[in-house]
Amino acid sequence: MTSPLLVFTTDFGLSDAYAGVMKGVALTINPDLCLIDLTHQILPQNIAQGSFLLGINHRYFPQDAIHVAVVDPGVGTDRRPVLLSTPRGRFVAPDNGLLSGVISGYLESDPTDSGPISLPPELSAVHLTNPEYWRHPVSQTFHGRDVFTPVAAHLSLGVSPEDMGELIDSLVYLPIPQPVQTGGIITGRVIYQDVYGNLVTNISADILMVPKSADVLIKGRSIHGLQSTFNDANGTTNGKLIALAGSHGYLEVAVSNGHAAQFLEVSAGEPVEVVTEPA
Amino acid sequence: MTSPLLVFTTDFGLSDAYAGVMKGVALTINPDLCLIDLTHQILPQNIAQGSFLLGINHRYFPQDAIHVAVVDPGVGTDRRPVLLSTPRGRFVAPDNGLLSGVISGYLESDPTDSGPISLPPELSAVHLTNPEYWRHPVSQTFHGRDVFTPVAAHLSLGVSPEDMGELIDSLVYLPIPQPVQTGGIITGRVIYQDVYGNLVTNISADILMVPKSADVLIKGRSIHGLQSTFNDANGTTNGKLIALAGSHGYLEVAVSNGHAAQFLEVSAGEPVEVVTEPA
Amino acid sequence: MTSPLLVFTTDFGLSDAYAGVMKGVALTINPDLCLIDLTHQILPQNIAQGSFLLGINHRYFPQDAIHVAVVDPGVGTDRRPVLLSTPRGRFVAPDNGLLSGVISGYLESDPTDSGPISLPPELSAVHLTNPEYWRHPVSQTFHGRDVFTPVAAHLSLGVSPEDMGELIDSLVYLPIPQPVQTGGIITGRVIYQDVYGNLVTNISADILMVPKSADVLIKGRSIHGLQSTFNDANGTTNGKLIALAGSHGYLEVAVSNGHAAQFLEVSAGEPVEVVTEPA
Repeated sequence: MTSPLLVFTTDFGLSDAYAGVMKGVALTINPDLCLIDLTHQILPQNIAQGSFLLGINHRYFPQDAIHVAVVDPGVGTDRRPVLLSTPRGRFVAPDNGLLSGVISGYLESDPTDSGPISLPPELSAVHLTNPEYWRHPVSQTFHGRDVFTPVAAHLSLGVSPEDMGELIDSLVYLPIPQPVQTGGIITGRVIYQDVYGNLVTNISADILMVPKSADVLIKGRSIHGLQSTFNDANGTTNGKLIALAGSHGYLEVAVSNGHAAQFLEVSAGEPVEVVTEPA
Repeated sequence: MTSPLLVFTTDFGLSDAYAGVMKGVALTINPDLCLIDLTHQILPQNIAQGSFLLGINHRYFPQDAIHVAVVDPGVGTDRRPVLLSTPRGRFVAPDNGLLSGVISGYLESDPTDSGPISLPPELSAVHLTNPEYWRHPVSQTFHGRDVFTPVAAHLSLGVSPEDMGELIDSLVYLPIPQPVQTGGIITGRVIYQDVYGNLVTNISADILMVPKSADVLIKGRSIHGLQSTFNDANGTTNGKLIALAGSHGYLEVAVSNGHAAQFLEVSAGEPVEVVTEPA
Repeated sequence: MTSPLLVFTTDFGLSDAYAGVMKGVALTINPDLCLIDLTHQILPQNIAQGSFLLGINHRYFPQDAIHVAVVDPGVGTDRRPVLLSTPRGRFVAPDNGLLSGVISGYLESDPTDSGPISLPPELSAVHLTNPEYWRHPVSQTFHGRDVFTPVAAHLSLGVSPEDMGELIDSLVYLPIPQPVQTGGIITGRVIYQDVYGNLVTNISADILMVPKSADVLIKGRSIHGLQSTFNDANGTTNGKLIALAGSHGYLEVAVSNGHAAQFLEVSAGEPVEVVTEPA
């Protein structure tokens, strides 16, 4: 029989035992679980980064996966613990915007302000108020261990969401910065830097948005045209600054066999312009 | 059928393949194992840190878990490989004090000197001398792969501890530094710094020991009163030095949305005083 | 029933979600998989290091393991995706030399030039050309997610290699630097530095090759004789530069309770000489 799947996305890092302890708690409740890490290396307390990575990457997991997502600077305050059910998985998380990237895929248009938004009809949510499914005593500082993981493990045993708290019809939403198009110029920004130093922007790599012949401008440099890979066929491109449609589905700026973030001395937030028509 | 559980706690890090290789060895002996990392990031050869983290965190795992614990600067010398059986799990480890944090929970009072201590009645131990349950050839430098993991995997198959070596009635104990109380002042120290920079002390967060109104002194600074969370409800506390009852069960010093270790320029060993009565 | 085993060896690191996403893709195809990391911390795009670690360490895994190996600077170019079947596991990887360490064990003599080599009779390989077993759309930059992992997951379901592409009889081979013996002197080099700073050389620790009384020369220093452990029995060796037969099966240079790479200021590539007869 297939094991139910829990997927962890947190900012706990791997230096401490926090990630391991959550797995111990999960297996104590349901010893048949399959436990997978999406990542524990969200930048500390960076809800926007967690929202971006979870929004893009939960689509690669089975639709019956239960995600435990914890980037939770407000742990112990009155921010709500919630469960969000979607056609592509269930998510146990603090209600602080961390699930915006997941919710975004179901919205017709992206809100521009932070705050509660009404859930679209494909989604349902529960405010987790029933302490029967928590670990006791509940600490004030580690709800990943004491609330979110126990709830997820009980879900995996078949407990229904309605038993875990009260149905709610809105969640806190943190808008995802959208690129702006003016004439032939799209202005976006770097939203993520990966371990290779590749700079992922918020500009969709959709060919209609960024044609292959576009110029990409970043920190005073101009890159002409999009490459399809990090290297050309004859491998002579070492150290060349390039732009390409990256695996996240967005425009990326990279250096072939190099580190674009260090080379350009930029990080998340840096403006990027795509010029699709010559000035 | 539920898979038997092996939990790894080592100082091997994740940069090398050492942790992965132990899992290969375990699955070669018992392919049905569930393998979980508590952490591989104990500071290199820091037995005291391993003892502290294992002592606190093994309690979150199922009681039938088999723990493989390896912080082993004496590998290849005559330090003994041992198996410790407790009501809260079995532990395969070098006999160098690494299991002190586990044993501590069963002692009536904590010894003050390092050395062998007699085991309390709830615990039993075996000196692992039977090479039938090891991997051969046994290297002189990697008993995690060649002795501890194979023994744990065979245990998971139902081999009895008595078949693996000789019953012993003492293990090496490394005293855990205890805070000292003099009048209204408790003097302890920082024993662990987590990835957020939070400073975990050896002063139990028990309300009888540290009342909420206490003053906490560290590196010339005084913190008045204990917070219950890292942030207050209105989120205006960024950068504030605070003290609180942390999730490990001990008093912690932290900076709201900041890094206390860097802010105070302190690390493990730093003295901390709690003043429960005004001077 | 025992779960089929997938083992990952990549240079993706753990800071991003790349490793986690591959696991999601694998479990979407076969939810019964057991997923293990050998390491995701191969140095970025360092095919030689990946080849070395995979060659040594795959032997510790069950013989029916399916390895997903991705160090792939040429992703998206015309380098071939391949499947290699061996008596000690199957390997899905780019055909760029990454499997040389695995192939090496079946060769009578090691080639000295890079390039295609004919496979020995124990091995068989397939050029993965059948897109039916890939994830679509296939990105140009992340074949670990879109090609290698889906192929491995389908293999675990019993799809035969022949259905996945065309049988081929050669693979790209990247020679593993071999030590040279001249009279009583063996000249090799450091090929790997582990997280402790231990320097692993390419000189086999076989006693016939390196007798215990040999002198080991590195960066102007001479080490007399081989130790059997990192520490001697009385623990007085802190900080001492030593040579020993390491757990990888090769001669290692280390500092007892210290960091040889920092102490000597050397890294991979550094020449090492073993003098087995006095000059």
